[in-house]
Amino acid sequence: MFNSFGNIIRLTTFGESHGKCIGGVLDGYPSGIVIDEAFIAREMQRRRPGQSEITTNRNEKDDVEILSGVFNGRSTGAPIAYVVWNRDARPDEYEKVKSVYRPSHADYTYQLKYGIRDYRGGGRSSARETSARSVAGALAKMALKQLGIEIYAFTSQVGPVKMDRDYNGVDFDLIDKTPVRCPDMAVAERMIEYLKEIKANGDSIGGTVSCVIKNCPIGLGEPVYMKLHAQLGNAMLSINAAKAFEYGDGFDGIELTGSQQNDVFYNNHGYITTRTNHSGGIQGGISNGQDIYFRVLFKPSATISKSQHTVNDKGEQVDLKVNGRHDPCVLPRAVPVVEAMASLVLLDFYLLDKTRQL
Amino acid sequence: MFNSFGNIIRLTTFGESHGKCIGGVLDGYPSGIVIDEAFIAREMQRRRPGQSEITTNRNEKDDVEILSGVFNGRSTGAPIAYVVWNRDARPDEYEKVKSVYRPSHADYTYQLKYGIRDYRGGGRSSARETSARSVAGALAKMALKQLGIEIYAFTSQVGPVKMDRDYNGVDFDLIDKTPVRCPDMAVAERMIEYLKEIKANGDSIGGTVSCVIKNCPIGLGEPVYMKLHAQLGNAMLSINAAKAFEYGDGFDGIELTGSQQNDVFYNNHGYITTRTNHSGGIQGGISNGQDIYFRVLFKPSATISKSQHTVNDKGEQVDLKVNGRHDPCVLPRAVPVVEAMASLVLLDFYLLDKTRQL
Amino acid sequence: MFNSFGNIIRLTTFGESHGKCIGGVLDGYPSGIVIDEAFIAREMQRRRPGQSEITTNRNEKDDVEILSGVFNGRSTGAPIAYVVWNRDARPDEYEKVKSVYRPSHADYTYQLKYGIRDYRGGGRSSARETSARSVAGALAKMALKQLGIEIYAFTSQVGPVKMDRDYNGVDFDLIDKTPVRCPDMAVAERMIEYLKEIKANGDSIGGTVSCVIKNCPIGLGEPVYMKLHAQLGNAMLSINAAKAFEYGDGFDGIELTGSQQNDVFYNNHGYITTRTNHSGGIQGGISNGQDIYFRVLFKPSATISKSQHTVNDKGEQVDLKVNGRHDPCVLPRAVPVVEAMASLVLLDFYLLDKTRQL
Amino acid sequence: MFNSFGNIIRLTTFGESHGKCIGGVLDGYPSGIVIDEAFIAREMQRRRPGQSEITTNRNEKDDVEILSGVFNGRSTGAPIAYVVWNRDARPDEYEKVKSVYRPSHADYTYQLKYGIRDYRGGGRSSARETSARSVAGALAKMALKQLGIEIYAFTSQVGPVKMDRDYNGVDFDLIDKTPVRCPDMAVAERMIEYLKEIKANGDSIGGTVSCVIKNCPIGLGEPVYMKLHAQLGNAMLSINAAKAFEYGDGFDGIELTGSQQNDVFYNNHGYITTRTNHSGGIQGGISNGQDIYFRVLFKPSATISKSQHTVNDKGEQVDLKVNGRHDPCVLPRAVPVVEAMASLVLLDFYLLDKTRQL
Repeated sequence: MFNSFGNIIRLTTFGESHGKCIGGVLDGYPSGIVIDEAFIAREMQRRRPGQSEITTNRNEKDDVEILSGVFNGRSTGAPIAYVVWNRDARPDEYEKVKSVYRPSHADYTYQLKYGIRDYRGGGRSSARETSARSVAGALAKMALKQLGIEIYAFTSQVGPVKMDRDYNGVDFDLIDKTPVRCPDMAVAERMIEYLKEIKANGDSIGGTVSCVIKNCPIGLGEPVYMKLHAQLGNAMLSINAAKAFEYGDGFDGIELTGSQQNDVFYNNHGYITTRTNHSGGIQGGISNGQDIYFRVLFKPSATISKSQHTVNDKGEQVDLKVNGRHDPCVLPRAVPVVEAMASLVLLDFYLLDKTRQL
Repeated sequence: MFNSFGNIIRLTTFGESHGKCIGGVLDGYPSGIVIDEAFIAREMQRRRPGQSEITTNRNEKDDVEILSGVFNGRSTGAPIAYVVWNRDARPDEYEKVKSVYRPSHADYTYQLKYGIRDYRGGGRSSARETSARSVAGALAKMALKQLGIEIYAFTSQVGPVKMDRDYNGVDFDLIDKTPVRCPDMAVAERMIEYLKEIKANGDSIGGTVSCVIKNCPIGLGEPVYMKLHAQLGNAMLSINAAKAFEYGDGFDGIELTGSQQNDVFYNNHGYITTRTNHSGGIQGGISNGQDIYFRVLFKPSATISKSQHTVNDKGEQVDLKVNGRHDPCVLPRAVPVVEAMASLVLLDFYLLDKTRQL
Repeated sequence: MFNSFGNIIRLTTFGESHGKCIGGVLDGYPSGIVIDEAFIAREMQRRRPGQSEITTNRNEKDDVEILSGVFNGRSTGAPIAYVVWNRDARPDEYEKVKSVYRPSHADYTYQLKYGIRDYRGGGRSSARETSARSVAGALAKMALKQLGIEIYAFTSQVGPVKMDRDYNGVDFDLIDKTPVRCPDMAVAERMIEYLKEIKANGDSIGGTVSCVIKNCPIGLGEPVYMKLHAQLGNAMLSINAAKAFEYGDGFDGIELTGSQQNDVFYNNHGYITTRTNHSGGIQGGISNGQDIYFRVLFKPSATISKSQHTVNDKGEQVDLKVNGRHDPCVLPRAVPVVEAMASLVLLDFYLLDKTRQL
Repeated sequence: MFNSFGNIIRLTTFGESHGKCIGGVLDGYPSGIVIDEAFIAREMQRRRPGQSEITTNRNEKDDVEILSGVFNGRSTGAPIAYVVWNRDARPDEYEKVKSVYRPSHADYTYQLKYGIRDYRGGGRSSARETSARSVAGALAKMALKQLGIEIYAFTSQVGPVKMDRDYNGVDFDLIDKTPVRCPDMAVAERMIEYLKEIKANGDSIGGTVSCVIKNCPIGLGEPVYMKLHAQLGNAMLSINAAKAFEYGDGFDGIELTGSQQNDVFYNNHGYITTRTNHSGGIQGGISNGQDIYFRVLFKPSATISKSQHTVNDKGEQVDLKVNGRHDPCVLPRAVPVVEAMASLVLLDFYLLDKTRQL
């Protein structure tokens, strides 16, 4: 019931980390959109592991096979199903930890909830599930592009190393120029240095991904329980390892008073707009035409190379030492997933808004 | 379509700030629960304005009239509908601002989205809608009480004045002892002083509400798109003026590495538990039996007494000076709403979890 | 969870037969529609009991009080909540049958499912719930009227007395001319005679309501699990006492072969249409621009004046003799409910269809 | 959005008749169920074409490949995705009819709704989609078997040839003994003779499938808009070519009065039951413990070998002569699909009923 996301366009995903495949079904996608498979491949390439020395060595090709919903290069309105086959799965590596509850992973909670679990690489709880989101996000982006809506996510903080909060000077074209996906080159350099250190220690670290949505039409978002920012928050918090969501000023504005934080309207040559944008482009849960921006906090990868104490499913205390392939930091690979989820939310709300008037 | 919240138990609310009433329909509520109307009244009393010098003077009795779903003092399984009549509504006060877009309110976005708006006190976008949530939350709490689940929210920061993050020493019985609803008496004192100052300036301020859920059973939460924390985040971000949600360590843990932040399992006399709780009681989106805790950031009330520049619906620049009844800080009244929404989420997920095995 | 109906526009109803009221919340209704309360009152008048000698004597005024969602005479896009107060409720009459399971009523199944039931007139299971549908249906009709879509239901069979199947000669203006709501005056006369006889016997009888939808745009309906006829069937079968749904030729076509029943396309002066309409205006679950027509079968009212054997909640055999106010035949009053539900489905699908293309 | 069916367990299907595959994702399936792939294969075998001289010659192996959700032979609670590869697809055969609107098919309505269509064998609108339902139905049956619930569908009428309505003497073990799936051997013989004649004429014919559900627990079904029979009706009407649904007495009871049709309760040695079952096992939308039974009407296959007049997408009149592989009657193959959909509804409502009390 809950492997689905969205209202008008609804994504359902399936698959396990070391099963046959990860896949998805995107239902409600508008008909007649030209499907650019090369673009999907590029988006997948951004999310896939093995891209650099600061990410996992797991080398997945992540080729997408579209199974339905596209005919003669266009979407037909039928559900678009697709799979990403797990070609580099190595389930045997997990035989030795099959009875061990890895700290801060979902092994224990899945076992208690379901009475059974696919222990191979976390099974369904693995971040590999996000590859299915990337495909759907790429499809959503194609439609948003026709509407002129642009979505940019980037790594804005890694542990103690952070970018300036104001994104206005940022050149979004630089995001993919470094493996850490921070568009401030000097900060990116420091992040990479820091990550190498973390990796050398067999440890991991978290940070924040920021996201900016430009050219969002006025009026997207539904009161009261489907506010635009609430659904964005929901989408982001559904990503593996996400721990927090803030939009607009967020926590940085906590000491500002109402008179300091209110966004005053003015008439800008016939167009009503606001002088500031503390609100992050959303008022009353509805887009106001300004830039939408938000930040997502990710915790460190739970998988580390350091030895850890834990227990197994018999309750015996054991030491866990993982030699698996893992990321010291999920941020660089989370960037495209944040964009994907934001794209799905925006397209869904765009379509939904068409029903507000006869 | 989106004035509803929840899955198995679904709350639908209706009503406008200065219309006839605010109301709700709670569908899917289990049958046979003894409905304690006095308890509902006490919960409403906590949310209602006019409680002290640091909240709005609007004096609403907020009596709840249950319309259906309760028979001979028990829930029947039929939808429980209720209304809170707007007895102190003063719609005429809003005639003078009917054409003005108040800064950081939803006037402008509602007008653009719907082509029409109820301008009286924000209409549907008013925080008065949360009175309907309080009733539903009180109903959910009655059921949770039978399950032993306890939920405590409290004001943990007001502008620059903040409590210690660790809630373990907190005496939750003190929450309602001060009008600011901070259970640390010394900090509460400082918050109140600060709020008096803010009020005297005709200004407003934001802050955070923290929430702790104790005795949550293991296994609540649904992967992948209905993770327990994602749905809690969704619920909290749907509350008026909410700007951020974090759970577990949240932003405070941003510089901690994986080896520092992982929650190591151990066998505590036959019961598997974790030595720390950086995860906030949730792993892989599913409760692990530890305390669940999270924080919600609220921005300052958009309504202030200070004069503000803005525009009206003809695009003309005007000055806005509101003499209305408003809160300098929404936090104290947001506390019970946070509890209400958390209660709805927990009960919903508890019921849902019953369907995971035959 | 399941006191709601619809997708984009969603009706949630509440209330019990002899509780305070019956009510509803219509969410997702388009903004800006002029709300004609007199029209709602007329529609309610059509459904209400006490209209003639062939319906129940229960005399309900059925005044509708709109609680929200309408401002200055227009819909605002906020949920429209309303109540119909139960002014003529006589709950005491049910004290004597409170422990008796009335045959073919929902007393027994509700008691077993919920462990408690409101025994006053069937509580939530009473057909009085349909008054909330009539209000929502009237609102939907107002929107459909702007789109030119017309919906006509009428009594087409009462026990053995039936109209000719072909509705093409029917003058829909005659539907409300007789209390039985059959637009064929001669047949109506025979139906009324038959019903008087049934009533005199203290018995009840069923029959069919037919419904014709004219000017439906091409393209309404969603494959695969929300086909237009499947959702119409779902809507109709949710009405109390409904036992069957058929559309197009239905059972009458069971002996026709494919070559006899296929609707051949032709070019009618530049407009593609079909020569026949065995399909009932729907092909592949999607409207094709022809008239949509269907029939709903209703069983006899379960409440009869004749004495019946049954058991009480202790399992003791008892005789039941009801002197309550009841209809010998639900058909005349079901007619407006069929129209109401069809209107809700059509408006929902019209709005939904707007999301099929960017 | 609408290629999904169900509440707690939700089936989403995808795929086109002559695309790569037909597939489905079954979400919410309980964990820990032993998955018997041989049983799935047998169920698929029942639905597949090419079984006999009275069905289509299209020879599909219809092997099911499970992609996810099953681990070590058991369901894990993760979504079960599966595909049936289209090995015998012959899309080229459809090139010649690509611009023709086949009478009583969905070609025209899909084209108008979506502006594009997969013309190969009806694409998404093909009855081949039901193979995905069969897999899901087989999975549901495995769970229902553990609960003792049994579901039997069979062909009860083909054109003018019909079985006796009373199913009580029927030996359900005989259903699969003849290719027409009618358990009355004499009637089956006549049906087969009739179908050979129809096939020889290049024509097609419809009829009814009856379904009986035994050992259904008391209490399944949700008021008001998710009544058990309404959801069964919805499920059945979503099957290709279905035109009507009736349950209990249905149309056959139209001349019976209330006193004749009411099901009188009595105490059968300590167990409350009804003397008759005109209600079809459902009262007030909730199962009462008696047999549930209903009938589904299917129209003749729209595809016939006879030449037909029609138009193409330019509006030109053309003659259509199909040499494709098609069934003279969909009934025999619809039987397992009816069982599949009924199984999905029953399991869904069983799980849902677990949430009605704490």
